[in-house]
Amino acid sequence: VSDLTFRSDITLQLDDWMGDDAKVIRMAKASIKKTGGDMEEAARMGFINFLMRERHGVPFEHCAITFYFEVPIFVMRQLAKHRISSISEASGRYVELEPVFYLANSQRPMVQIGKAGAYQFERGTYQQFQGYRFATEATSKRAWAYYRDLLDEGVARELARSVLPVNVYTSGYITVNLRSLMNLLSLRTAEEGAVIQGHPQYEIELLAQEMERVFACRFPLVHTAFLRNGRVAP
Amino acid sequence: VSDLTFRSDITLQLDDWMGDDAKVIRMAKASIKKTGGDMEEAARMGFINFLMRERHGVPFEHCAITFYFEVPIFVMRQLAKHRISSISEASGRYVELEPVFYLANSQRPMVQIGKAGAYQFERGTYQQFQGYRFATEATSKRAWAYYRDLLDEGVARELARSVLPVNVYTSGYITVNLRSLMNLLSLRTAEEGAVIQGHPQYEIELLAQEMERVFACRFPLVHTAFLRNGRVAP
Amino acid sequence: VSDLTFRSDITLQLDDWMGDDAKVIRMAKASIKKTGGDMEEAARMGFINFLMRERHGVPFEHCAITFYFEVPIFVMRQLAKHRISSISEASGRYVELEPVFYLANSQRPMVQIGKAGAYQFERGTYQQFQGYRFATEATSKRAWAYYRDLLDEGVARELARSVLPVNVYTSGYITVNLRSLMNLLSLRTAEEGAVIQGHPQYEIELLAQEMERVFACRFPLVHTAFLRNGRVAP
Amino acid sequence: VSDLTFRSDITLQLDDWMGDDAKVIRMAKASIKKTGGDMEEAARMGFINFLMRERHGVPFEHCAITFYFEVPIFVMRQLAKHRISSISEASGRYVELEPVFYLANSQRPMVQIGKAGAYQFERGTYQQFQGYRFATEATSKRAWAYYRDLLDEGVARELARSVLPVNVYTSGYITVNLRSLMNLLSLRTAEEGAVIQGHPQYEIELLAQEMERVFACRFPLVHTAFLRNGRVAP
Repeated sequence: VSDLTFRSDITLQLDDWMGDDAKVIRMAKASIKKTGGDMEEAARMGFINFLMRERHGVPFEHCAITFYFEVPIFVMRQLAKHRISSISEASGRYVELEPVFYLANSQRPMVQIGKAGAYQFERGTYQQFQGYRFATEATSKRAWAYYRDLLDEGVARELARSVLPVNVYTSGYITVNLRSLMNLLSLRTAEEGAVIQGHPQYEIELLAQEMERVFACRFPLVHTAFLRNGRVAP
Repeated sequence: VSDLTFRSDITLQLDDWMGDDAKVIRMAKASIKKTGGDMEEAARMGFINFLMRERHGVPFEHCAITFYFEVPIFVMRQLAKHRISSISEASGRYVELEPVFYLANSQRPMVQIGKAGAYQFERGTYQQFQGYRFATEATSKRAWAYYRDLLDEGVARELARSVLPVNVYTSGYITVNLRSLMNLLSLRTAEEGAVIQGHPQYEIELLAQEMERVFACRFPLVHTAFLRNGRVAP
Repeated sequence: VSDLTFRSDITLQLDDWMGDDAKVIRMAKASIKKTGGDMEEAARMGFINFLMRERHGVPFEHCAITFYFEVPIFVMRQLAKHRISSISEASGRYVELEPVFYLANSQRPMVQIGKAGAYQFERGTYQQFQGYRFATEATSKRAWAYYRDLLDEGVARELARSVLPVNVYTSGYITVNLRSLMNLLSLRTAEEGAVIQGHPQYEIELLAQEMERVFACRFPLVHTAFLRNGRVAP
Repeated sequence: VSDLTFRSDITLQLDDWMGDDAKVIRMAKASIKKTGGDMEEAARMGFINFLMRERHGVPFEHCAITFYFEVPIFVMRQLAKHRISSISEASGRYVELEPVFYLANSQRPMVQIGKAGAYQFERGTYQQFQGYRFATEATSKRAWAYYRDLLDEGVARELARSVLPVNVYTSGYITVNLRSLMNLLSLRTAEEGAVIQGHPQYEIELLAQEMERVFACRFPLVHTAFLRNGRVAP
């Protein structure tokens, strides 16, 4: 079983997108039968900020982004809970899975401190990390070997996969509109200045941070307004 | 009140879009970790047809279209019932409405024949059309004059507009993904070959037909598959 | 045309509902495999307050309310914009409309003061109200007479209705889950203590206030938590 | 590790519901301002059948069912893809998971025959079943032991769980309206007479069949109409 890959990162790539800051303005200005095409930079920023503050959410829905992702199944499970999205994921029924497993690196805080509802995470000890690493490698390797054996025996993929752990990687595409994306970011990041404090798991926060980088790059004014208004989705 | 405009048409323009036939395939092929980039034309057509027939709807959701529209309020009311959409509409609270009213032309079938659940529409007589035209012009002009008078008296736009008839025009933008668009088309057109016979009102069918033209132009394979599978949304 | 009715009120009745405060708790406690059935009143209040503050919205979605309503079309147009809802409305295509029209009473603030984005409404003068009343009665009566005439001439209901003003009443049922209802209330009321100030039109606020009364009665703890957290939907 | 439980079944219980056949009729009759309260049994059946056939879906949305479920994670992953639903699931971040694992019994067809897109499943050989059983028991036990060890070492639950396989059980509540439920049933069962042939995995079909039993019991006329119309959601 020498062919296993262990990764501590996620993959997030921009695949496609629709709209830009100007489109958000144009959609919103439809309410007053204007286009906003003649607005100066400062006025555009101010207007988008106004939309965000007043929770005029629909104009942001006319813009969308499609991302390609590779994440462990336990992250996929959290991602799939965002219902205002379209997700096309690799199928363990149609194709064999690949021997790629998540193994957190030692930067990953792995000890939970505090009482329910107010947890903090701290870096684990060397011993804890080694224990985690050993357990993860052992279960991943063992499970993968059984998975392969079952396939070789002729057991259907959909059943054989049931022995695989939730740190195995899956991949696919997710399309979200900008309003839904901001909602996802507000829940799946824990940035300073957020009005509502998110409690994301470390791994999905990695994914959300990558999404936010793309978002900030493609929609700089919308992203700035998102930050100014406490990272609350309109 | 010489400034009224009567129209018998609707306006529908492509504003923006995301994706193409190839993107639908790429999204769907994610389930088997392929891209479909190497497929021949015939294979692409066959694959999209397969998705449509088997009701694999999600791949179509990664593509979207934004339309600009101008329609009478009674059409807008039907359009707004499509919940998987984002609509930014002109506001009669924020801006004064314009004196543009719908007046069907004589091509519009205006007589309903048959019993509930199985109506047919037929062309009206000359007398019926003239009666309709007279009534529409009279109520539109009268209502518009009162609307203007109330505004001049200082009555708020949001209240003054309540005297206006539902044939006054509104405008705005609607963004729909391709799956939702096909659902709209299946309900708002009455084409031959449709498995489920739609019973759209004449005016929203005009709108839907324009939408379908844009759809067919930008996504020719998806549109062909839609036709081949009885115009049922996947 | 002596048969017209003018109303200044809306009708909102509880038709059906699912769940109660305890169900919200039971659904939320599923995340920790508890039922919450043994909680004291104070603990239940505290827990629901926690869910609301932390924006754990899903537990509230397992409860729903069905309302019967009678509202003018211009209110219906605003109500229909709430997409997380199921609305079954009377059809002007299937049945003849009834001669019931909205006429605001003199309590209704009808003058808009201030600049765009920061309007205040004030009571109108006696003259303004009389002007509004005269205009509304005149257009309603005239439009109704033409509507009846067109029907008598054999013009189809769906076309004949296009002469009717947006103050004519419609009716139907709306089902919303509790999360969606709270979102509606936050947008369609303008209560003190709201973190986000709504700017609802007077008439839909009447409707929302009635909805809130039913909500407060059936889900007292959830409603209290809604108030305590600035009337923001979780 | 003597405390592991292996199950080959899923748990599905009715928790709550709203509406009945009569409510569907009442909601639909709102379009013609009737209640349908005076209809005979045969007329009620005919009317619901008409709604289903003509794809009038909204009336069915006013009814909803809340189910309690216990399923393996790989079933949960499929269930979560139904976006028109509200799901409150046990959290592996907040509480420790329980040592309950899915192990298919020998009735479960485990060999896939045929080419892509047209698979059939057949019963496995004795040897295949024994192989599957051995692999499943071994990986479940081993993974559980590591999970417990990591928790004992102080590693956070959210990270420790990443060694567990997807056949571990989770639990929670799902609320779906009747339209969404019928869509789920059409996709997650493979019954004769279905217009669109579903290709559900065996395990989620068990779940869907239980859902259908509850549905048929609470909404007998709607269920009959669902069957009569080829098990297509309206």
